[in-house]
Amino acid sequence: VYVVLAGGIGAARFLRGLVRIVDQRDLTVIGNVGDDIELHGLHVSPDLDTITYTLGGGIDTEQEWGRAQETFTVTDELRRYRDESWFTLGDRDLATHIHRTARLRDGVPLSHVTAEITTAWGIGLRLLPATDDPVRTTVITRDGRSLHFQEYWVREHAAPDVEQVVLAGAEHALPAAGVLDAIAAARAVLICPSNPVVSIGTILAVPGIREAILGSHAPVVGVSPIVGGGVVRGMADRLLPAVGAEVSATGVARHYGPLLDGWVIDRVDADHGATIAELGLDVAIADTMLDDVPNAAAVAAVALEVAATIRGRR
Amino acid sequence: VYVVLAGGIGAARFLRGLVRIVDQRDLTVIGNVGDDIELHGLHVSPDLDTITYTLGGGIDTEQEWGRAQETFTVTDELRRYRDESWFTLGDRDLATHIHRTARLRDGVPLSHVTAEITTAWGIGLRLLPATDDPVRTTVITRDGRSLHFQEYWVREHAAPDVEQVVLAGAEHALPAAGVLDAIAAARAVLICPSNPVVSIGTILAVPGIREAILGSHAPVVGVSPIVGGGVVRGMADRLLPAVGAEVSATGVARHYGPLLDGWVIDRVDADHGATIAELGLDVAIADTMLDDVPNAAAVAAVALEVAATIRGRR
Repeated sequence: VYVVLAGGIGAARFLRGLVRIVDQRDLTVIGNVGDDIELHGLHVSPDLDTITYTLGGGIDTEQEWGRAQETFTVTDELRRYRDESWFTLGDRDLATHIHRTARLRDGVPLSHVTAEITTAWGIGLRLLPATDDPVRTTVITRDGRSLHFQEYWVREHAAPDVEQVVLAGAEHALPAAGVLDAIAAARAVLICPSNPVVSIGTILAVPGIREAILGSHAPVVGVSPIVGGGVVRGMADRLLPAVGAEVSATGVARHYGPLLDGWVIDRVDADHGATIAELGLDVAIADTMLDDVPNAAAVAAVALEVAATIRGRR
Repeated sequence: VYVVLAGGIGAARFLRGLVRIVDQRDLTVIGNVGDDIELHGLHVSPDLDTITYTLGGGIDTEQEWGRAQETFTVTDELRRYRDESWFTLGDRDLATHIHRTARLRDGVPLSHVTAEITTAWGIGLRLLPATDDPVRTTVITRDGRSLHFQEYWVREHAAPDVEQVVLAGAEHALPAAGVLDAIAAARAVLICPSNPVVSIGTILAVPGIREAILGSHAPVVGVSPIVGGGVVRGMADRLLPAVGAEVSATGVARHYGPLLDGWVIDRVDADHGATIAELGLDVAIADTMLDDVPNAAAVAAVALEVAATIRGRR
């Protein structure tokens, strides 16, 4: 089995390609739930849903999140009663949140509900939330406020200066059932080109996950989310400075540190190759824009090749 | 203040008229919550919402329940995940249920949430659920099944033979805050032309409400839900046989028994007048079809007149 650490849009782009070259039954994706939020009393899991809708063929392909052919009748009506209009939920999307919330209230763990949802979408890979426990990415601003990640990101457009990013609740969280087993059995661990701080970082903040990856014999290969000092799509470049990391292919590799064995960087960052190799990493250079499925499949193939090379050496 | 005992459609029809002749601030409507049901984890209050949407101008005027210009995107999507398709919720309607459920989960009592909702609709009268506690109208069938009222009514189209109707949970239920005070202060108590068993009966099944009405000096005047041995609209004739009551203007008057002081019957039932008077009731005859607002206002005026006459005598 391949284990994939995944955030939202960047991960979904990568996975679209990976599933073209690997049997979905051999994939366990560990998804970020730090961005999860309760809105109108409903449990929203933005990153899990972005992956589900993308692989299930229900994604809005323009914005790369939310549902295609979406309508907003419920949210429009909700404005009559409550003021949470900064986060707009579409009608089709809401069905997922309503179902998930109902199941959670019945006592079903998030990992189990997520399996039900991916199955309903005909998805063959296993998508596991990093944890079934309530954890929330919390942004502490310079002016001393504590914001839910979505409040910081969506409501305040990432404008406030950030002092610190913490995964609230992490100290008491357990990896979801299956996460540690999958890592222990992994041929390789792949890190998607997702936000290193608030996507991958929050997965690794669940006690036991980082340790399991460090302790496994599987090579760990990531795809750099930073291309030419910026980001192709999404928000993979944000908040790196808040954790003292440089916004570059090298900066992210350094940030992951001893976790990483191999690193796939973009052609425009080829000049970073030598520096990254000096960190002790296997470096591969590819066109990593992930802007269509063939490209994503090619990038995935490169990552698997790097993993196979490292495995062969061990 | 006038206190009005109300079910769904029949009550909404009557109230449309009553609010034309009485200042809404002088009206307290006690609504049935025995039909309430949790669907997809959401708390649905069909009778309260029928009243709210009718008085607020949001009702589907054809079917007399649910929202005008309704769409069903969420329910269509929910079918992907769950099988509760026997009860269809529209998108606009769902906004109300989502808001109500979120507030209830925050610990806000149903009566308070209901006030928020009616205020949001610009409704001036006070709509109180009979109780804030969980009660459920339960239909025990001849073949020994115990069905939620909505399962019996909507899913099974009222086909099973009924042994008994009970308000499950009633023994531990308390009248919602304000209910007993309103009854104690009432100039008159009006009983809408609603189902005597599953609408009015479930209100009266909340311990303390029937006793408060019997103990008050206010005249109690009802409008017969039965016209010519049938019902104009809705389901006010159903389940009367299950409680041993005849489906007639007289039968319902007898069923209410000592609770009632006055009874408004339809012109087609004029021949019942003498029998009903023999029961000790003031009888008024009117055209009670309630099929438009002027007619509803006329019927309401007749009911208030009967109440005033009885009050004058006391």
